[in-house]
Amino acid sequence: MKAIVKENPGTGFTVRNVPVPEELSANEVLIRVKRASICGTDLHIYEWNNWAEQKIHPPQIVGHEFTGEVVKVGQGVTRVSVGDVVVSETHIPCQKCLQCKTGRMHICKDMNILGVDRDGVFAEYVKVPEVVLWKVPDGISPEFASIMEPFGNAIHTALVTDLTGKNVLITGAGPIGLMATAVARSAGAAKVIVTELKEFRKELAKKMGADVILDPREVDIVHEVKRLTDGDGVDFFMEMSGNLNAFKQGLESTTNGGEVSLLGVFSGNVDFDINSLVIFKGLTLYGITGRRMFETWQVATELLRNKRVDLSPVVTHVLKMDEWEKGVKSMLDGIAGKVILEIE
Amino acid sequence: MKAIVKENPGTGFTVRNVPVPEELSANEVLIRVKRASICGTDLHIYEWNNWAEQKIHPPQIVGHEFTGEVVKVGQGVTRVSVGDVVVSETHIPCQKCLQCKTGRMHICKDMNILGVDRDGVFAEYVKVPEVVLWKVPDGISPEFASIMEPFGNAIHTALVTDLTGKNVLITGAGPIGLMATAVARSAGAAKVIVTELKEFRKELAKKMGADVILDPREVDIVHEVKRLTDGDGVDFFMEMSGNLNAFKQGLESTTNGGEVSLLGVFSGNVDFDINSLVIFKGLTLYGITGRRMFETWQVATELLRNKRVDLSPVVTHVLKMDEWEKGVKSMLDGIAGKVILEIE
Amino acid sequence: MKAIVKENPGTGFTVRNVPVPEELSANEVLIRVKRASICGTDLHIYEWNNWAEQKIHPPQIVGHEFTGEVVKVGQGVTRVSVGDVVVSETHIPCQKCLQCKTGRMHICKDMNILGVDRDGVFAEYVKVPEVVLWKVPDGISPEFASIMEPFGNAIHTALVTDLTGKNVLITGAGPIGLMATAVARSAGAAKVIVTELKEFRKELAKKMGADVILDPREVDIVHEVKRLTDGDGVDFFMEMSGNLNAFKQGLESTTNGGEVSLLGVFSGNVDFDINSLVIFKGLTLYGITGRRMFETWQVATELLRNKRVDLSPVVTHVLKMDEWEKGVKSMLDGIAGKVILEIE
Amino acid sequence: MKAIVKENPGTGFTVRNVPVPEELSANEVLIRVKRASICGTDLHIYEWNNWAEQKIHPPQIVGHEFTGEVVKVGQGVTRVSVGDVVVSETHIPCQKCLQCKTGRMHICKDMNILGVDRDGVFAEYVKVPEVVLWKVPDGISPEFASIMEPFGNAIHTALVTDLTGKNVLITGAGPIGLMATAVARSAGAAKVIVTELKEFRKELAKKMGADVILDPREVDIVHEVKRLTDGDGVDFFMEMSGNLNAFKQGLESTTNGGEVSLLGVFSGNVDFDINSLVIFKGLTLYGITGRRMFETWQVATELLRNKRVDLSPVVTHVLKMDEWEKGVKSMLDGIAGKVILEIE
Repeated sequence: MKAIVKENPGTGFTVRNVPVPEELSANEVLIRVKRASICGTDLHIYEWNNWAEQKIHPPQIVGHEFTGEVVKVGQGVTRVSVGDVVVSETHIPCQKCLQCKTGRMHICKDMNILGVDRDGVFAEYVKVPEVVLWKVPDGISPEFASIMEPFGNAIHTALVTDLTGKNVLITGAGPIGLMATAVARSAGAAKVIVTELKEFRKELAKKMGADVILDPREVDIVHEVKRLTDGDGVDFFMEMSGNLNAFKQGLESTTNGGEVSLLGVFSGNVDFDINSLVIFKGLTLYGITGRRMFETWQVATELLRNKRVDLSPVVTHVLKMDEWEKGVKSMLDGIAGKVILEIE
Repeated sequence: MKAIVKENPGTGFTVRNVPVPEELSANEVLIRVKRASICGTDLHIYEWNNWAEQKIHPPQIVGHEFTGEVVKVGQGVTRVSVGDVVVSETHIPCQKCLQCKTGRMHICKDMNILGVDRDGVFAEYVKVPEVVLWKVPDGISPEFASIMEPFGNAIHTALVTDLTGKNVLITGAGPIGLMATAVARSAGAAKVIVTELKEFRKELAKKMGADVILDPREVDIVHEVKRLTDGDGVDFFMEMSGNLNAFKQGLESTTNGGEVSLLGVFSGNVDFDINSLVIFKGLTLYGITGRRMFETWQVATELLRNKRVDLSPVVTHVLKMDEWEKGVKSMLDGIAGKVILEIE
Repeated sequence: MKAIVKENPGTGFTVRNVPVPEELSANEVLIRVKRASICGTDLHIYEWNNWAEQKIHPPQIVGHEFTGEVVKVGQGVTRVSVGDVVVSETHIPCQKCLQCKTGRMHICKDMNILGVDRDGVFAEYVKVPEVVLWKVPDGISPEFASIMEPFGNAIHTALVTDLTGKNVLITGAGPIGLMATAVARSAGAAKVIVTELKEFRKELAKKMGADVILDPREVDIVHEVKRLTDGDGVDFFMEMSGNLNAFKQGLESTTNGGEVSLLGVFSGNVDFDINSLVIFKGLTLYGITGRRMFETWQVATELLRNKRVDLSPVVTHVLKMDEWEKGVKSMLDGIAGKVILEIE
Repeated sequence: MKAIVKENPGTGFTVRNVPVPEELSANEVLIRVKRASICGTDLHIYEWNNWAEQKIHPPQIVGHEFTGEVVKVGQGVTRVSVGDVVVSETHIPCQKCLQCKTGRMHICKDMNILGVDRDGVFAEYVKVPEVVLWKVPDGISPEFASIMEPFGNAIHTALVTDLTGKNVLITGAGPIGLMATAVARSAGAAKVIVTELKEFRKELAKKMGADVILDPREVDIVHEVKRLTDGDGVDFFMEMSGNLNAFKQGLESTTNGGEVSLLGVFSGNVDFDINSLVIFKGLTLYGITGRRMFETWQVATELLRNKRVDLSPVVTHVLKMDEWEKGVKSMLDGIAGKVILEIE
């Protein structure tokens, strides 16, 4: 089968033929991939940054966001059948640790990540354990299905609290920030304020439903957010940028007793005044990783098939598998939302 | 001042002149009423049903839903000032009981209700304690402000749980059911299913955002709700009808582990199979009364001024104070949503 | 192997030899049973009441509460190994329905119950799917392990809300009510008030930590509960009796805004004034069934191995397997807490 | 009346005669102080550190933790009467801001603190607004009543989540850490692990119910905590030390998905790896300040009068008002828990 492979250390990917996974253990499922989408993590592997150098062992098939059709199941598999259209968690839980046993597989202590710790999904077929699969009902396009994984990040980040009637700040309008904007609007947020530097993303944020878009080079974020909220600040802040200044400004822009979701990954330590920005204000901070299995996927499914959220603006590219490099380049150039590859 | 008064036991109201409330105790506030709206409770008092006979002591000014302007404050008043535009809780809490002292004034054990236990608001002026007042910001029309009290009932009923991506059933499209429909849609509900008998209300439900309107005389509610929800039933059920059959059908239509808000008042005891409809299904039932002071009012304010909910369809009549009887009759005839009286 | 079997319709059980379960499918586990305990459900099957007549298809091995050791595993099994000491959920979830997929297997819509829908555990060996097993760490005796399933019911019922500093009412001191008494005390409840008719159980309730035991034949329950709680009533009420009067008295004894867990199964419909007992009081009612998999088991494990709860008083009988009839009779005579059978 | 006064900038307090507060506005209450206790904040004012220099404007009566009897009430006061025994919030809320209006007065945006922003309670009489008062029922000694304010901090910090069956880490066994230890034990925590350097406090921690006391100079905290918890780490971590290393060790010692309460005030910024210590672990961090008005006080009241928590070990000194300096010195020398002054 054809696959996009990290062949060697250093920049780049290669398309080459690799064997279709043959052996299925009792709980495994073989899937014919139909659409896959490119994540920022794939860019790190492409560019071979420090993180990639430490985590990735070439040669390896890359990619982890996808949708496809079940073509073969192991003999212990009961939850999916051949012919089912599925999407998949990319965080494969061990199912044995305390977290896995108590309804929190998304924070498994011994997680294995598709396309990072094992072969990924930019290939015609992929083999995954049954536990990560989620069936896609009619009414959701393959393109939207293929980005349900990052959409799930947005939902998980946004819906840690009830947003109806709440003022919301989102720092960073990358693909997940953009989808979180739409989720917040769909959830009945009062005002959705987004901070972003890049014009391309500012435009997308507007299309996804942001009420106000602030550029930290142009305005004083804290001052503006307070001005827009009767001086109170926002009730809920989603940190999506991984930028320390955005983090600190966001905390300062959050009203006493407000809630904060942290999804953005910082480039190093954070250094901030936790007394006045968190403790004395009585804020609650939620560290967010992955998606709840499968509460988050259920919400994603209902929002998409009932058209409560429209992800069209964020899907800026749908390409053939062989055009993968164009997708990667567009993302690196900051002129893409989600890039989807047609695998079949 | 002019006031609509329950003069004597028996059917009817009378408009007559009564003295403006003069004496303000330390924590009281005098308000010039601008708009007031008619509630089902007012109809009970008008018709003089059993409940009214036991609770109301004529002569008394009726009405409790209103907005107005502060014209005078007692010497201990600090939270509002002359000139403030306000709306008001109609449940006056004692501020001394366990509930009042622990953030739950809406379920005060010694509550005093405007227009029921004391003179009401269908008058040019009304005197209330400071504790019930909520300031209305710019951007909310007097008409919408005057129905924030029942809108708050809808919000309190709907937002006991996060509705984003959830399927919702509402039994009964009276004014509060209609407003709850809009709240559920605003909060990102997957499907909002409403049951109703009257054509007039079915039309309004559609305008308020119901996805499906079911008539229990025409279809099997449980069967239809399950059909619309992949056989699962709804995640959340709001009982707004006070009808025993609707209650039982709603419970049966709710998926295992679902949540149920009970706002409708039943005409007598309920008699149902709590084992199979609640216990074995692991349902949670919330008894709902009043509005949280003032968490609910804050959400109401934000939803209205940010146009996240449009209450226009439910405001079917705006009348002069002297036209009150036309409003009462329209409501009794089932051809009205909310009827608003212009008092000033 | 030796097993206690429901041989035919009608009263009684039989001990006889049956084959050890041989074939294990991919996800199944064979367990050598060590201790089992008798549940009220087993008594219904023994006595062959209406429920049993409709649900049970003899011949069938009975019993569902147990602990044992893993002796063989199917080829897809990864979470337990031969030699592990385990306890087991008795509610076998389908793992496919909405509830199972979203962290709520305890309210699975297609549940299969050990010793009811399939052969039970009063036998030397039992075969169960891996998904229901929970490993027992050192420091928990086999006797306590064998009653972790009903202890889990008590925990699930009690810990739907935080009990620290709350006044608690428990109606009915059967085995689960007794264990819930100990859980409430362990969780820091202010006062734990228990209602019970039988002297034997009243004594046990005292040993399990009840502060006050009320007999509804001797005192007015509502009056006494209010007197004991400054006139407020309890914050939390656990209905463990399945008795309609107890249910109504309990609701009336609960303070406005209080919470209510319903575990007791009623003999028929309930008929009560839901307006004044639930809606106007703003109560929340939780229907409780089973145990959360496996959040509840984790709490049970920690409470037992850290000696935060002592179940000794409730274990009134430890008998040889052949003495099963003595155990059944003691329970039917109301002179037993939990009866444990030594199977090995 | 006699009062302990911060007379001038610089170290020290002075006892001198000052006028009894005479004028009561409509909502104020005059209280005869009976017992007061010394807080770490009072030590800062005594020592005149940087914080004190910026915040305190001598001459001023110091102290804020106390109990007393109502002797006079303003004309708008309705919730307390002359003769009531009361304790008091020390954080006087504005009652006007968003937080105050929505049930969160403890994080008021315009708070006024007793003994800091205005005259304190180390005096025979003190005048406070009605809103901060809480009646003390029979069965709570004046000594325990006088420390309900810091006890409330411990409760607020500990009970942000349900602790029953949870493993708990507390960093720092100062008075509030000690009381939190007792609260965690009372709430049914599995293991309560306390870190502390000082021998005197280690002894008190044992008396308050700590299961394990770890000294960071003697053991590797993270390694030990994990060893004590099957390798998982604790479910709940209360940061009570304001020490950066303790904070980082605590986060690392918390299991994925665990919860963290932050009460300790840090001496400056914190600098830590929020990616691996919070975000990827899915932790939730709660900034804690003050006490919920008055949910926290209600729990404190019930725990004390039902003897669910015994504060005796933490009350190491009960002194006459004139012996205040002995109390201050004992605290500065680290050989005191709570020091109580008999004012009457």
